[in-house]
Amino acid sequence: MEIKITKTTAPKAKPASDGLGFGKYFTDHMFVMDYTEGKGWHDARIVPYGPLSLDPSCMVLHYGQAIFEGMKAYRAADGGALLFRPMKNMERVNISNDRLCIPQIDAEFAVEAIKKLVEVDMDWIPDGEGTSLYVRPFIIATDNALGVHPSHTYQFIVIMSPVGAYYPEGLNPVKIYVEDEFVRAVRGGMGFAKTAGNYAASIKAQKVAAEKGYTQVLWLDGVERKYIEEVGTMNVFFKIDGEIITPALNGSILAGITRDSSIQILRSWGLKVTERKLGIQEVYDAHKAGKLEEVFGTGTAAVISPVGELNWAGNVISINNGEIGEISAKLYDAITGVQSGEIEDTFDFTVRV
Amino acid sequence: MEIKITKTTAPKAKPASDGLGFGKYFTDHMFVMDYTEGKGWHDARIVPYGPLSLDPSCMVLHYGQAIFEGMKAYRAADGGALLFRPMKNMERVNISNDRLCIPQIDAEFAVEAIKKLVEVDMDWIPDGEGTSLYVRPFIIATDNALGVHPSHTYQFIVIMSPVGAYYPEGLNPVKIYVEDEFVRAVRGGMGFAKTAGNYAASIKAQKVAAEKGYTQVLWLDGVERKYIEEVGTMNVFFKIDGEIITPALNGSILAGITRDSSIQILRSWGLKVTERKLGIQEVYDAHKAGKLEEVFGTGTAAVISPVGELNWAGNVISINNGEIGEISAKLYDAITGVQSGEIEDTFDFTVRV
Repeated sequence: MEIKITKTTAPKAKPASDGLGFGKYFTDHMFVMDYTEGKGWHDARIVPYGPLSLDPSCMVLHYGQAIFEGMKAYRAADGGALLFRPMKNMERVNISNDRLCIPQIDAEFAVEAIKKLVEVDMDWIPDGEGTSLYVRPFIIATDNALGVHPSHTYQFIVIMSPVGAYYPEGLNPVKIYVEDEFVRAVRGGMGFAKTAGNYAASIKAQKVAAEKGYTQVLWLDGVERKYIEEVGTMNVFFKIDGEIITPALNGSILAGITRDSSIQILRSWGLKVTERKLGIQEVYDAHKAGKLEEVFGTGTAAVISPVGELNWAGNVISINNGEIGEISAKLYDAITGVQSGEIEDTFDFTVRV
Repeated sequence: MEIKITKTTAPKAKPASDGLGFGKYFTDHMFVMDYTEGKGWHDARIVPYGPLSLDPSCMVLHYGQAIFEGMKAYRAADGGALLFRPMKNMERVNISNDRLCIPQIDAEFAVEAIKKLVEVDMDWIPDGEGTSLYVRPFIIATDNALGVHPSHTYQFIVIMSPVGAYYPEGLNPVKIYVEDEFVRAVRGGMGFAKTAGNYAASIKAQKVAAEKGYTQVLWLDGVERKYIEEVGTMNVFFKIDGEIITPALNGSILAGITRDSSIQILRSWGLKVTERKLGIQEVYDAHKAGKLEEVFGTGTAAVISPVGELNWAGNVISINNGEIGEISAKLYDAITGVQSGEIEDTFDFTVRV
């Protein structure tokens, strides 16, 4: 499919690279492609960034039939741009699509479209330390009707936002509240998919935890409320007695791309990484026995987020004296180094624009 | 708060009352009210029905922070209009809002706004047998930013759609598939709230069931997958050995307004109605013992939907020989009679416009 490009005639002023924050500013262009039943995906186009005109009955506003992705583009030393494993994101779009009855996309074409969009807005990639261009592909159901069934029409849209360093003052351990009331997802639900509704379901617990002084929540499983699932919007890893353990993908956990990259890198260092069921009691027992060495989250936004403290039903679990663990720091440097092109990419993770 | 009214200068042609379907046509006007943090809900207005201009970063499109309601307005014999328990819907808006961190609305004001909107578009209420004007209030998060947290701005919108009879050929029993793979909601989730994401989560199971020849699915609980929760987008009742049983509200079941009305009416007839945990095995055993007398769903769209057959893991449970049950038929007539004003409203359910 050809991508028609219409460039803006009114480019916006770019924000200063020291006050970017996350997802507040958007570039001059966006990619849009339509789906119509019987016709498939069509009219791929890059157009000036601007508002969508949606009928008030538009299905996405009522039934949340919407999925999204997130990835980052980095400015390479030679002035080009690097994307980190974009094909994995586009493959995950199709996993999410399947769960929500949204038609499959051509993942390779979508990566090409994203590369083209990054190329058009290349000068929007910020160049401050730790900054990047966040790429947000998403799909919305666009039928104008109130029947509860899969939409017959959709839009696939990619917008981009220059974002600041996640830790402007350097990597910093966070305090996490083990959530015992709210549940993020359950087997048979849509926890493994990146759907809009999963995020709506999560914000109340995050808000309550924030009011208690915690940065994120640690989600337990929805059935027994014993087993660890994710932390906030990240996957989570525990280093216990030299072994690195992360919850196995069980249908209610998102298969994070930073999670997968972390497992590959840690194993390449000769470390033992195990994907299995992990109970919060086991983590607490390891802490009591002095064997809980590190805890960290993995995700696109923060890359690696060291955890300094867990609060489980009033039991405070301090990790590594609240300091960044050795593996957490080394993994952060390794991934961000590959992402920015400063370290040789022996895993073939990056794609050049 | 004052409601500013701007009437359309280009009224639409009204569709024929025999081809309305559900939620396909919309009236000439809509109600809109904005929320801004620090300012509260403001700028209540009735304006010509028309598209919303949403930034592509608008939060509802990414994180599904959206809730909705549904109710019907009926044309009364004297030419006025009747709403069925609108205050219950607006109270439920606030229950849903609380779960999704959306600010509370003034429920009484919202009912007044809906009455005013129905008044403005009064001639859109269809008058064919079984037809009505479906009223769809909904709230969407409207911040233009990608951070995962509650939005700081929202819109409360009410649109209306003339809808046809749900059973154009008369009340008709449906075949239901007992869902054993997908889960609608779990305790600690958002099943008790009317959120967009709950509906996105449900459509795949409905699609799979439809492909097998079933109209809806019967949802079991997400923890043990044994206990009955809802049927499709309705609550569900079972008449076993003279007693009417419906699942108790447990946090993952929507507190339906037709459910509540049905309980009140059935009890007023001297029938025993019990709200409790009900296992699918118990229903099957009752069927084997010849004691499963009736099954019916309750909801705004269909009002009462008799169930003629359940398929539980290949076990076919035929109910009342696939015929409409006596109580189902009587309850349907009672509720629709009150809704349309044909039967005296001894429960004070209806509100006149």
